[in-house]
Amino acid sequence: MQRYGWIIGLHPDRVEDYKREHAAVWPAVLRMIKDCNIQNYSIYLRQFPDGAFYLFSYLEYTGTDFDGDMAKMAADPTTQEWWAVCKPMQVPIANAKEGEWWADLEEIFHCD
Amino acid sequence: MQRYGWIIGLHPDRVEDYKREHAAVWPAVLRMIKDCNIQNYSIYLRQFPDGAFYLFSYLEYTGTDFDGDMAKMAADPTTQEWWAVCKPMQVPIANAKEGEWWADLEEIFHCD
Repeated sequence: MQRYGWIIGLHPDRVEDYKREHAAVWPAVLRMIKDCNIQNYSIYLRQFPDGAFYLFSYLEYTGTDFDGDMAKMAADPTTQEWWAVCKPMQVPIANAKEGEWWADLEEIFHCD
Repeated sequence: MQRYGWIIGLHPDRVEDYKREHAAVWPAVLRMIKDCNIQNYSIYLRQFPDGAFYLFSYLEYTGTDFDGDMAKMAADPTTQEWWAVCKPMQVPIANAKEGEWWADLEEIFHCD
Protein backbone atom coordinates (compact mmCIF):
# COMPACT_ATOMS: atom_id res chain seq x y z
CA MET A 1 0.00 0.00 0.00
CA GLN A 2 1.28 3.46 -0.92
CA ARG A 3 0.23 6.59 0.97
CA TYR A 4 -0.10 9.99 -0.69
CA GLY A 5 -0.37 13.46 0.84
CA TRP A 6 -1.34 16.37 -1.42
CA ILE A 7 -2.03 20.10 -1.13
CA ILE A 8 -3.95 22.64 -3.18
CA GLY A 9 -5.35 26.13 -2.59
CA LEU A 10 -9.07 26.91 -2.43
CA HIS A 11 -10.62 30.19 -3.59
CA PRO A 12 -11.77 32.02 -0.44
CA ASP A 13 -15.16 32.79 -1.93
CA ARG A 14 -15.75 29.12 -2.81
CA VAL A 15 -15.02 27.54 0.57
CA GLU A 16 -18.66 26.96 1.48
CA ASP A 17 -19.44 25.63 -2.02
CA TYR A 18 -16.55 23.20 -1.82
CA LYS A 19 -17.58 21.98 1.63
CA ARG A 20 -21.20 21.54 0.54
CA GLU A 21 -20.24 19.58 -2.61
CA HIS A 22 -17.87 17.37 -0.60
CA ALA A 23 -20.51 16.63 2.01
CA ALA A 24 -22.46 14.91 -0.78
CA VAL A 25 -20.00 13.59 -3.37
CA TRP A 26 -21.77 11.84 -6.22
CA PRO A 27 -22.00 8.06 -5.69
CA ALA A 28 -20.55 7.33 -9.14
CA VAL A 29 -17.49 9.43 -8.27
CA LEU A 30 -16.99 7.47 -5.04
CA ARG A 31 -17.37 4.18 -6.94
CA MET A 32 -14.71 5.25 -9.44
CA ILE A 33 -12.35 6.16 -6.57
CA LYS A 34 -12.79 2.62 -5.21
CA ASP A 35 -12.45 1.11 -8.69
CA CYS A 36 -9.13 2.91 -9.01
CA ASN A 37 -7.80 1.24 -5.85
CA ILE A 38 -7.94 4.27 -3.58
CA GLN A 39 -9.04 3.84 0.03
CA ASN A 40 -9.09 5.77 3.30
CA TYR A 41 -9.18 9.06 1.42
CA SER A 42 -9.67 12.22 3.49
CA ILE A 43 -9.61 15.91 2.58
CA TYR A 44 -8.86 18.54 5.21
CA LEU A 45 -9.32 22.31 5.10
CA ARG A 46 -7.31 25.02 6.85
CA GLN A 47 -7.37 28.80 6.68
CA PHE A 48 -3.89 30.30 6.99
CA PRO A 49 -2.99 33.44 8.97
CA ASP A 50 -2.89 35.48 5.72
CA GLY A 51 -6.52 34.51 5.02
CA ALA A 52 -5.75 31.99 2.26
CA PHE A 53 -7.41 28.57 2.35
CA TYR A 54 -5.66 25.27 1.64
CA LEU A 55 -6.87 21.73 1.18
CA PHE A 56 -4.81 18.73 2.27
CA SER A 57 -5.62 15.25 1.14
CA TYR A 58 -4.46 11.91 2.48
CA LEU A 59 -5.16 8.71 0.59
CA GLU A 60 -3.99 5.13 0.32
CA TYR A 61 -3.41 3.36 -2.97
CA THR A 62 -3.70 -0.42 -2.94
CA GLY A 63 -3.24 -1.18 -6.65
CA THR A 64 -0.14 -1.89 -8.70
CA ASP A 65 -0.39 0.77 -11.45
CA PHE A 66 -1.05 4.20 -9.97
CA ASP A 67 -0.56 6.10 -13.22
CA GLY A 68 -2.80 3.63 -15.06
CA ASP A 69 -5.53 3.91 -12.43
CA MET A 70 -5.31 7.71 -12.45
CA ALA A 71 -5.66 7.65 -16.25
CA LYS A 72 -8.72 5.41 -15.88
CA MET A 73 -10.24 7.87 -13.41
CA ALA A 74 -9.47 10.83 -15.67
CA ALA A 75 -11.19 9.07 -18.59
CA ASP A 76 -14.42 8.52 -16.65
CA PRO A 77 -17.15 10.91 -17.89
CA THR A 78 -18.81 11.29 -14.46
CA THR A 79 -15.47 12.04 -12.83
CA GLN A 80 -14.84 14.62 -15.56
CA GLU A 81 -18.18 16.27 -14.69
CA TRP A 82 -17.26 16.22 -11.02
CA TRP A 83 -13.87 17.78 -11.70
CA ALA A 84 -15.60 20.47 -13.79
CA VAL A 85 -17.44 21.40 -10.59
CA CYS A 86 -14.40 21.21 -8.29
CA LYS A 87 -11.50 22.53 -10.32
CA PRO A 88 -12.73 26.12 -10.73
CA MET A 89 -12.83 26.33 -6.91
CA GLN A 90 -9.22 25.17 -6.55
CA VAL A 91 -5.95 27.05 -7.09
CA PRO A 92 -2.76 25.02 -7.47
CA ILE A 93 -0.06 26.15 -5.06
CA ALA A 94 2.33 28.58 -6.77
CA ASN A 95 5.34 26.31 -6.35
CA ALA A 96 3.60 23.19 -7.69
CA LYS A 97 5.66 21.26 -10.22
CA GLU A 98 4.93 21.56 -13.93
CA GLY A 99 1.70 19.67 -14.62
CA GLU A 100 0.74 19.18 -10.95
CA TRP A 101 -2.79 20.11 -9.89
CA TRP A 102 -2.77 18.81 -6.32
CA ALA A 103 0.93 19.11 -5.34
CA ASP A 104 2.79 16.39 -3.47
CA LEU A 105 3.67 16.60 0.19
CA GLU A 106 6.81 14.79 1.31
CA GLU A 107 6.23 11.96 3.80
CA ILE A 108 8.88 12.29 6.51
CA PHE A 109 7.44 10.00 9.20
CA HIS A 110 5.13 7.03 9.39
CA CYS A 111 4.11 4.76 12.23
CA ASP A 112 1.72 1.90 11.46
CA MET B 1 -11.99 5.15 14.94
CA GLN B 2 -11.44 8.91 14.86
CA ARG B 3 -9.16 10.58 12.29
CA TYR B 4 -7.17 13.71 13.02
CA GLY B 5 -5.39 16.12 10.67
CA TRP B 6 -3.04 18.70 12.15
CA ILE B 7 -0.68 21.45 10.96
CA ILE B 8 2.35 23.23 12.40
CA GLY B 9 5.19 25.35 11.01
CA LEU B 10 8.81 24.23 10.91
CA HIS B 11 11.80 26.56 11.28
CA PRO B 12 13.46 26.75 7.83
CA ASP B 13 16.91 26.18 9.30
CA ARG B 14 15.76 23.04 11.15
CA VAL B 15 14.14 21.17 8.24
CA GLU B 16 17.01 18.74 7.76
CA ASP B 17 17.31 18.14 11.52
CA TYR B 18 13.60 17.42 11.77
CA LYS B 19 13.70 15.01 8.85
CA ARG B 20 16.74 13.22 10.25
CA GLU B 21 15.20 12.83 13.72
CA HIS B 22 11.94 11.56 12.21
CA ALA B 23 13.73 9.02 10.06
CA ALA B 24 14.83 7.37 13.31
CA VAL B 25 12.22 8.09 15.98
CA TRP B 26 13.14 6.52 19.32
CA PRO B 27 11.53 3.08 19.79
CA ALA B 28 10.14 4.06 23.20
CA VAL B 29 8.37 7.03 21.62
CA LEU B 30 6.81 4.78 18.99
CA ARG B 31 5.72 2.32 21.68
CA MET B 32 4.04 5.10 23.65
CA ILE B 33 2.21 6.25 20.50
CA LYS B 34 0.84 2.71 20.12
CA ASP B 35 0.06 2.48 23.85
CA CYS B 36 -2.00 5.65 23.48
CA ASN B 37 -4.15 4.03 20.77
CA ILE B 38 -2.75 5.95 17.82
CA GLN B 39 -2.24 4.14 14.52
CA ASN B 40 -1.51 4.89 10.88
CA TYR B 41 0.25 8.13 11.85
CA SER B 42 2.04 10.02 9.06
CA ILE B 43 3.78 13.39 8.97
CA TYR B 44 4.18 15.28 5.70
CA LEU B 45 6.37 18.28 4.86
CA ARG B 46 5.76 21.06 2.34
CA GLN B 47 7.60 24.27 1.52
CA PHE B 48 5.22 27.09 0.61
CA PRO B 49 5.79 29.63 -2.17
CA ASP B 50 6.88 32.24 0.43
CA GLY B 51 9.65 29.90 1.59
CA ALA B 52 7.97 28.85 4.84
CA PHE B 53 7.79 25.16 5.76
CA TYR B 54 4.76 23.40 7.18
CA LEU B 55 4.19 19.94 8.62
CA PHE B 56 0.89 18.11 8.21
CA SER B 57 0.03 15.09 10.26
CA TYR B 58 -2.63 12.46 9.76
CA LEU B 59 -3.40 9.92 12.45
CA GLU B 60 -6.09 7.53 13.57
CA TYR B 61 -7.22 7.16 17.17
CA THR B 62 -8.73 3.82 18.13
CA GLY B 63 -9.25 4.35 21.87
CA THR B 64 -12.18 5.73 23.82
CA ASP B 65 -10.53 8.58 25.79
CA PHE B 66 -8.43 10.77 23.53
CA ASP B 67 -7.76 13.45 26.15
CA GLY B 68 -6.81 10.79 28.70
CA ASP B 69 -4.46 9.07 26.27
CA MET B 70 -2.87 12.39 25.29
CA ALA B 71 -2.33 13.16 28.99
CA LYS B 72 -0.72 9.72 29.41
CA MET B 73 1.61 10.45 26.50
CA ALA B 74 2.47 13.90 27.85
CA ALA B 75 3.36 12.35 31.24
CA ASP B 76 5.82 9.85 29.73
CA PRO B 77 9.43 10.92 30.49
CA THR B 78 10.83 9.58 27.19
CA THR B 79 8.13 11.36 25.21
CA GLN B 80 8.98 14.54 27.12
CA GLU B 81 12.64 14.15 26.08
CA TRP B 82 11.55 13.58 22.49
CA TRP B 83 9.35 16.67 22.52
CA ALA B 84 12.27 18.66 23.95
CA VAL B 85 14.13 17.75 20.75
CA CYS B 86 11.21 18.43 18.39
CA LYS B 87 9.40 21.43 19.82
CA PRO B 88 12.21 23.99 19.35
CA MET B 89 12.12 23.12 15.62
CA GLN B 90 8.39 23.75 15.34
CA VAL B 91 6.42 27.01 15.15
CA PRO B 92 2.70 26.90 15.84
CA ILE B 93 0.69 28.50 13.04
CA ALA B 94 -0.14 32.12 13.90
CA ASN B 95 -3.89 31.51 13.88
CA ALA B 96 -3.76 28.40 16.10
CA LYS B 97 -6.30 28.41 18.90
CA GLU B 98 -5.26 29.29 22.44
CA GLY B 99 -3.29 26.35 23.82
CA GLU B 100 -2.90 24.52 20.48
CA TRP B 101 0.58 23.36 19.44
CA TRP B 102 -0.28 21.38 16.34
CA ALA B 103 -3.46 23.09 15.08
CA ASP B 104 -6.52 21.20 13.86
CA LEU B 105 -7.42 20.84 10.22
CA GLU B 106 -11.12 20.49 9.40
CA GLU B 107 -12.10 17.20 7.77
CA ILE B 108 -14.46 18.02 4.91
CA PHE B 109 -14.45 14.71 3.01
CA HIS B 110 -13.82 11.07 3.74
CA CYS B 111 -14.17 7.94 1.65
CA ASP B 112 -13.36 4.59 3.30
